[in-house]
Formats: sequence, structure tokens, C-alpha cells
Amino acid sequence: MSNNYTVADYLLDRLVEIGIDHFFGVPGDYNLQFLDHVVAHPHIAWVGCANELNAAYAADGYARCKPAAALLTTFGVGELSAVNGVTGSYAEYLPVIHVVGAPSLRVQHAGELVHHSLGDGDFGHFARMAQEVTVAQASLTVENAASEIDRLLATALFEHRPVYLLLPSDVAEAPLPAVQPVPLAPRQPTLCEAALQAFIAAAREKLQPARRVSLLADFLAERFGAAPLLAQWLQQVDMPHATLLMGKSVLDERHPYFVGTYAGAPSAPQVKQAIEGAEVVINVGVRFSDAITAGFSHDLPAEKCIDIQPFEARVGRQLFSQLPMHAAIKALHQLTLELAPRWQLPVIARPPLPDPGTPRLDQQGFWCQMQDFLRPGDIVLTEQGTSSFGAASLNLPSGCHFIVQPLWGSIGYTLPAAFGAGMAQPERRVLLLIGDGSAQLTAQELGSMLRYGLKPIIFLINNDGYTVERAIHGPQQPYNDIAPWNWAQLPQALAGEQPCKILRASDRQQLRQALSEATDCAQLAFIEVVLPKMDIPPLLDMVSRSMSARNSAI
Amino acid sequence: MSNNYTVADYLLDRLVEIGIDHFFGVPGDYNLQFLDHVVAHPHIAWVGCANELNAAYAADGYARCKPAAALLTTFGVGELSAVNGVTGSYAEYLPVIHVVGAPSLRVQHAGELVHHSLGDGDFGHFARMAQEVTVAQASLTVENAASEIDRLLATALFEHRPVYLLLPSDVAEAPLPAVQPVPLAPRQPTLCEAALQAFIAAAREKLQPARRVSLLADFLAERFGAAPLLAQWLQQVDMPHATLLMGKSVLDERHPYFVGTYAGAPSAPQVKQAIEGAEVVINVGVRFSDAITAGFSHDLPAEKCIDIQPFEARVGRQLFSQLPMHAAIKALHQLTLELAPRWQLPVIARPPLPDPGTPRLDQQGFWCQMQDFLRPGDIVLTEQGTSSFGAASLNLPSGCHFIVQPLWGSIGYTLPAAFGAGMAQPERRVLLLIGDGSAQLTAQELGSMLRYGLKPIIFLINNDGYTVERAIHGPQQPYNDIAPWNWAQLPQALAGEQPCKILRASDRQQLRQALSEATDCAQLAFIEVVLPKMDIPPLLDMVSRSMSARNSAI
Repeated sequence: MSNNYTVADYLLDRLVEIGIDHFFGVPGDYNLQFLDHVVAHPHIAWVGCANELNAAYAADGYARCKPAAALLTTFGVGELSAVNGVTGSYAEYLPVIHVVGAPSLRVQHAGELVHHSLGDGDFGHFARMAQEVTVAQASLTVENAASEIDRLLATALFEHRPVYLLLPSDVAEAPLPAVQPVPLAPRQPTLCEAALQAFIAAAREKLQPARRVSLLADFLAERFGAAPLLAQWLQQVDMPHATLLMGKSVLDERHPYFVGTYAGAPSAPQVKQAIEGAEVVINVGVRFSDAITAGFSHDLPAEKCIDIQPFEARVGRQLFSQLPMHAAIKALHQLTLELAPRWQLPVIARPPLPDPGTPRLDQQGFWCQMQDFLRPGDIVLTEQGTSSFGAASLNLPSGCHFIVQPLWGSIGYTLPAAFGAGMAQPERRVLLLIGDGSAQLTAQELGSMLRYGLKPIIFLINNDGYTVERAIHGPQQPYNDIAPWNWAQLPQALAGEQPCKILRASDRQQLRQALSEATDCAQLAFIEVVLPKMDIPPLLDMVSRSMSARNSAI
Repeated sequence: MSNNYTVADYLLDRLVEIGIDHFFGVPGDYNLQFLDHVVAHPHIAWVGCANELNAAYAADGYARCKPAAALLTTFGVGELSAVNGVTGSYAEYLPVIHVVGAPSLRVQHAGELVHHSLGDGDFGHFARMAQEVTVAQASLTVENAASEIDRLLATALFEHRPVYLLLPSDVAEAPLPAVQPVPLAPRQPTLCEAALQAFIAAAREKLQPARRVSLLADFLAERFGAAPLLAQWLQQVDMPHATLLMGKSVLDERHPYFVGTYAGAPSAPQVKQAIEGAEVVINVGVRFSDAITAGFSHDLPAEKCIDIQPFEARVGRQLFSQLPMHAAIKALHQLTLELAPRWQLPVIARPPLPDPGTPRLDQQGFWCQMQDFLRPGDIVLTEQGTSSFGAASLNLPSGCHFIVQPLWGSIGYTLPAAFGAGMAQPERRVLLLIGDGSAQLTAQELGSMLRYGLKPIIFLINNDGYTVERAIHGPQQPYNDIAPWNWAQLPQALAGEQPCKILRASDRQQLRQALSEATDCAQLAFIEVVLPKMDIPPLLDMVSRSMSARNSAI
């Protein structure tokens, strides 16, 4: 290993510069040269994961809590194991820098028949696959390394999506000549002043006659850094507002005019009324996908919407390009300051979750108790399934960060994502709610949480199989059964010498006791919550009916 | 669900017809309609796995014991989780039929923003990725279903490689009109009679003057069904023969002229002499890749080889196309019957594995005891790492089936592959040897083995991390450490109510005792074998040195 400043060092310095402190991944012989530089770097820590898919999920969770994340895999076997996780980051807009350690350029140019290749001398197969699911790709050489690294990092941050960086083993440790210590230049979205003025004029025309105006925010508002602007706006301008499930926690749910989670037809009555009953709805960073709208059951004609996207906006059906989200929000903030005094404001009734009041533990009772357990500032990860759709009914305390993956919807995602989120923000309490079917996909990463000293509170919802699938199709079919694990024995098996607290609750009193023990517990707490096999939250019932219908033959 | 004969039924009938009895995979809402037909089918059984990568590995293991395998995943999340396993099947020539349950054609044509898509209305991203790593792809409609299913299955069998079959949920359950009950027509390789005669003439010229002729067989001989032909040949014609590690067990290792596993420079002296010392070497289905030749250290100039590949052959550097492997083998068999009486035959000395004779358990002692533990007919899976390179020195009893993945080399592969092999041939004893680092990637599938009542004998080689990586680079580096698991507690945690036998050996006496208890044990046996962290088999030492050198900067 050379003492010179290498390509590896340059990449690591740039990652630190954009706010990355940890590198997730799995070693493989094509990335070991690079790893020497990772572990030697003073400002970045290596986080070894049990496998590459889990590492990609962890990086995704980390990127939801930090400006970006870094993921390291080896060529072929490693990168392809991770690709589902990276694709989730692409679908859901998370900037993950995927670095793939590759055979040396010499080996590649000679087309040698080496391990982790297809044996056909073509080393481009996997980079071509990455073109489908990342926003930029580069194959590094010593000559292009500095410019390509800068291009990829800037693109990932600008588009909030993953990039793919192929790093041959010899290039990683090659000295980098003539490095310029210039700060990384961020890409700025183009603002067309004429478009902004036209947008303001159109919005004024749309809003002028309205008396009932509401705001609906979704995940892209969070991804593109608009949460603080929205908070200021809603502090100064009173209007009913809601989020979709995918953007839950981008708005402060304790605000007096926050009405709840909008989900189309199955929304709670006060949410449906506030959003669909408005004359104009201002959408910020919204994408109406099937899972969060119960199969497109939302009733929001484009004509009555003002729609703000990351780089453009619409008033009704009129498009305004080159208009970044922040500029559009600021403009509407000013405009509504002027118009809002004429608006009618509804009385917001947010009924508490109905408490069944029975000692038996079911979905309804579980969510009532969870509501009381939440604290300001919690990071709450809920797995796609009964967990996320049940959690839609929660009213989050201020400062909570809600993590869910309803568009990509890859089961098992949240367990490693909780690991990544915990590494990103160790000072915050992390709650993970995941079903038994989902947890089986990625359970290894419990061991990584323990290895790195994290202390999340994990709710393992044991409802005996894939309950969300049962709700969609085949409730009694054997394909919705899973291998029966002894969940209470699992954490200790993966814990090494680390202590952890194992709890189990199959009635409400036991859950109360478990929650009390888990609060401020100085160890990782693992609570197996036994819930009825066929019990599902009401929202999931509607969502799964729509999915079932849409999958069937016409 | 309709009672009509559907696309799903047709596909299942065809799979049964080509020798598939089991369908591995994970349910997802886009494949549940199809799964109804799978579980209802009288001749195919659904095998649910803990996650899709493991399912793909299990299908690969199954395809090594049966004519082919079937794998079912859901769109996007499922198929991409499996893609590394499918790619391994592509690199190593296993016919795996990958069926992907997709959104209905109606949803796809409308470009809807549905879960498990990238949200851009393009449903072709993942099929395009599959083009890189499968030999044929199809997107099924009712109209093309029968012909496309037939084309893909015939291609998979012909090329011995995976195919990708996109099955929209509505197409799966659509009635299939006018099905012709014609048997699936297998594709036959083209034989050019002139090429065959020219090949025979050239081979005669090459062999005529030779007195020392040897045969070297590798995995493609096994994949393309040539093992019986080779066995007949070697029964009638005495010549020294060996396999490469990737093809180990394609020849009967108890044959008097079997010399061992050839691995280039680090081969045992009698193997090196028999192969490299021959005047002509007949290679059958050989691919010299880096891991099995210690970095291309084999000394076999093309001029002295006759090289038989699946669809062509070479004598020296002269190529004969349109010459299938079976025809070439039969021709050489006849030719050598005539020439062999003039050959010189060496005395084959196969020294037994050197027994260190110490009570301490190390790699050397471990493999000595394993040698005695093997039985005819065992299926032996050895993970890429100390397990496979140590096992290279074993002399397998007749009828053993050795499974290893040295070209693709995806760590964690063998554990689910052992599950697949066990499902394929439940009457055979399955031995799995895997290190702790590798086992962490895919450990969930222990639960599936137990769920389906399999009783393999699992040797968990606990050497405290990624020993194979330590041998290549960074022996003391923290990135080669892993989360410390309590291995002895793991199987029971994943076992439900199933009993399993947990054993542990850290010296030779304990290993002897454990082997004795595991023999004919009526349960899954899990033996944690504690071996020194830095102890590696001699072959791996040479292999890892070559890999390290080849990864470095020039």
C-alpha cells in the first residue's frame, strides 16, 4: 500500500465532505484494497453487514437521516445481491453512493476468466444493469477518477437518487496526481424567473375565489429539503393540512390544523373532508401511488390542485417548468399570507384512536398503546404491511421521523434500515415495527445492531405468516405460511456476548408491562407481539381489496 | 378462479414434463393468482423460502440434482433480490426457470404508478436487466403463452442456463384456448458430419505418436450429461484422469487411474505429473478460471490438448464447429480403444491425506476425519473458501455428488443450495460444509430445511470471520471480522417445534464423537467445528496469493 494520496482517499474525502460518516457493506476480494483506506480514514467508519441486500437497506435507512449514504460491495455477486436495495433507493429518492470493487483494469482489459464474472470476458454486464436503476454510472480510471467522482456525487445529491461507481482494485490504490482541493460544487436547479411569475399569476387566479384551501404534502417534500419551509408557512398561514403515508412526518402532526394521513377513499372522515372538500388543494411533493391511495381512490381532480414537484409545478393542468420546489413554496407562502384572511377554517376534530377496552390484544388495541408510547424525536420504522398501514392512524409527536417504503414495498426492508438509521443518529430512540414474515428475510441484521451497540426497540408482530398477503389473496393458502421460528430465542443467538432484553406480549396487560420495561432500557429490546393471524388494520383492508381487484383478470 | 385450463396450468404441466417437481420462491401479491394453481397442481409442490436470494440458491442446488429447477418471485423487489442467485446459475450453467409474477397487462399498459415499480410507468426495466444474465426472456400474453413457454423451456434445457419469464397476474389465470397436447420438443445440437470426420482425423494425427495420454474433465461435462459416457470410456480405456475442482465428482474418484483434483501449480505431485507430464491431454468440458487454477498457473499449452466443449471441439488450435460434446466423446472413445494398447501407464500413487496425529483440531486434521466420514452416494456441498479448497484434497467415494461454486463464488450460496439439493433427492445424505462468515448471509434457510423435514448434516466451520478474505488481504483488518453469533443457539431458534441435534467440536476427539452422533441421526445435525482463525488449506494458500497479486496495482 502506498503512502501517497490515492483515488480511494479522494473518494473518501469527498464522501465525508457531503456529510457521510459511515460506509456500509460487505468485504470481497476486489474491494479489500479500497477497504484498507476506509478503515484508515479518520472521519469515516466501516460498518460491516451480514449480507449485501441488508447493507443496501441499511444505507437507504442512513440516507433518510443524513444527506447521503455510501455502500460498498464487490463485483458481480455483491452488487447484484444489493441491487434490490439500491433500486428501492432509486424508486423512493434516496442518494446512495454504490461503490463496487472490481477486478483490476489489467484483468478486465485482458478479458480474463475470473471469479465473480460470467466467464465470458465481458465486464460490462452489471454496469449495464445498473443503468436501469441508478441516475449516473462511472467506471473509474486514474485519469477520470476525480472528475467522475465529483460528477456522480453532485448528481446523487441533486436528483436524490443512487449512483453507481465501479472501482477497479488497482485504480483504488493508485496515486492521484494533481488533486485540486476545491470544494465539491453542488448542482443547483434552474429557476426561470418568467415561469415563477407566470406560476404566481396562475396560482393567484386559482386561489383568489377560494374560501376552502388545504395543503397535502408527501415524501418528495421531505427528500428535497422542503420540510422547514413548509413548517414556516404553516406557522404563519392557517390552513388544514395532511400528508400521504409515504410522506408521514414531513409535517408536524401536533399542529392544530394537521388533520391526519390522507389515503383516498378509506381516509378518516375529517381528513377526507379537509382534503377532498377543499376548493383548492396545494400538493407539495406528492405522488399518488396505488398503495397509499387504496388503488387510486383519491378524489382530487387536477383542476382544483396546485401541484409542486421538485423541479416544476402545475396550476390545474398548466405546467411551469424550471421552477424548483423551494421557489414555488416561498411564492405560495407569500401569496397565501395575503389571501388567507378570507378563508374559512374548519373545526378540526381529531378523534383519539378508538380503544376497544378489552384485555385481548388485537390490532386496534395495539395501536392505541403504541400511540401512548411514542415520544417526540423518535425515529419510527414501520414495515410495509400491517405495521405501516396500522401506523397511518398514529398521531406522531413533534420531531418524529417516520420511515416507510410504500412505493418500492420490499418486505424485510425496515429491519436493516433501522440499523442504518440508528448508526446515522445514535442519539435518537429508534422504534421498529415489523411482521414475522417480513423479518425472516433480513433477520441477520439484528446481529449487526448488537455488534455495533445499537439499542432500538423492536416490535416483532407475530401474526403467523404473511398477513398482508392473506388480506390480498389466499387467506388460508399454504403459500402464505412461513417457517415457524422461535422468535424469543433469535436475538440471543445473534448477540454474541451482548445483552439484550427479550419480551413477549399476547394480551394488553403484557404489552403494557413490556412497553414499560422497554422504555429507557439500556439494551436492545425485542418485543414479540402476538396478534391474531387474520386481524388487519381497517386501512389495509381497503388497500388490499383494491390490490386484489387490480391483479385479477378483467 | 376459473375452472378452465389456464396459462398457469400450461406452464406447470410443462415444468412437470421436463422433470421439475418443486417450485421454489416467495409469494408476493403479483404472483398469488399463479400460486393458487401451483398449490392445486397434483405433481408439483410449492417450497416457500425465507427470501428470494435464498430461493434462487435453492433452485440452483435443485437444478444440480434434477433436469432443471423453477423459481417464482414477484415483480421488482422479488426478482431483483433473486438476481444474484440466477446470475450464478447463468455463470455456472444451471437451467433455472425464473417466473416473475407481474402487474396485470391492464396496469402495465396504462403505465400506472403501482408498488414494486420505479414509479415511472416503465415496466421493462427489470426484464432488460434480465437480458444480461439469462439466455432467453419472454413477457407472456394469453396469445403467446404456449409458444413462448415452450421456447424458453427448450432453450433453458438446451443451453443449461436460466431463462426469464414475466407472467402478468391476469395472464396467469386466463384460460388458454386450443392447447395442443404435443410433447415439448427438445432442441438438439447440430452435428456436422464433415466436422466430426475432420475432428477424428486431426485427433488421430495428434494421438498417434503419443505414449502418455491423460484426460481432464470439468463441470461442463457434468452439466451436458456426459458423465455416463466418460465412465464407460474410462472403464474400457485405461488412462490417467483428473477433474478440476469445479467438476469434482463428474468422474468416479475410486477408479484406479483417477489421480486427483488438478489445480495448476499447487496440484498434488501425482496429479501435476499425470496431467502436465502427458504428451496429449484430452479436456472435456473444461474452463480454466482463476480460482480453480491458482490464477492460471496451469501449464497446458493448447498445442498438446484436445478440447471438447458442449457444441464444438479443438485439436490443438484447430476448431471444429457444430460438433456436440457427446459425439466428440464417442469418437475419441472409439479412437483410443484402438490406440491405447501402445500407451505407457504410470503407477498411480494416491497418498492418503497426511494425518497430523495431534489432538488439536486444525484444517489438516479436520479433512482427515471428513475423508473417513464420507459414504458412497453422499451429496457434499462445500462453500467457496476454506471448505471447498480443503475438500479438493478429498477422495470421494463412488456415486458422491460434489457441489461447489468456484466461478461465481457467491458466499452464502451453499446453505440454501443444500436445501434445494435435499428437496430434489431426499433419499440421499446431504453434507454441507460452510464457514461462519458465509453462513451469516443466508442462515435463514436453516429454518426452511427444518420446516420441510430435511435432515442434512451441517458443518459450520467457525474460524471467527472471513478467513478466505484474510488469506487474500488484510489478515488482521477489522473488515474481515463479523458479528459474533452464538451458533449453537441458532438452529433451535429457527426450528419451531422440529427437533435438531446441535453438536460442537473444538478438538479431534470431540469431532470424532460428533461425527459418530451425526451418523444416521434421524434429525438435522448441526456441528459447530471450531478451527483456528488463520489456518487455511494449502491449496487455498496458493490460490489466495495469486488473487492478491492480481488485484494489486502494477
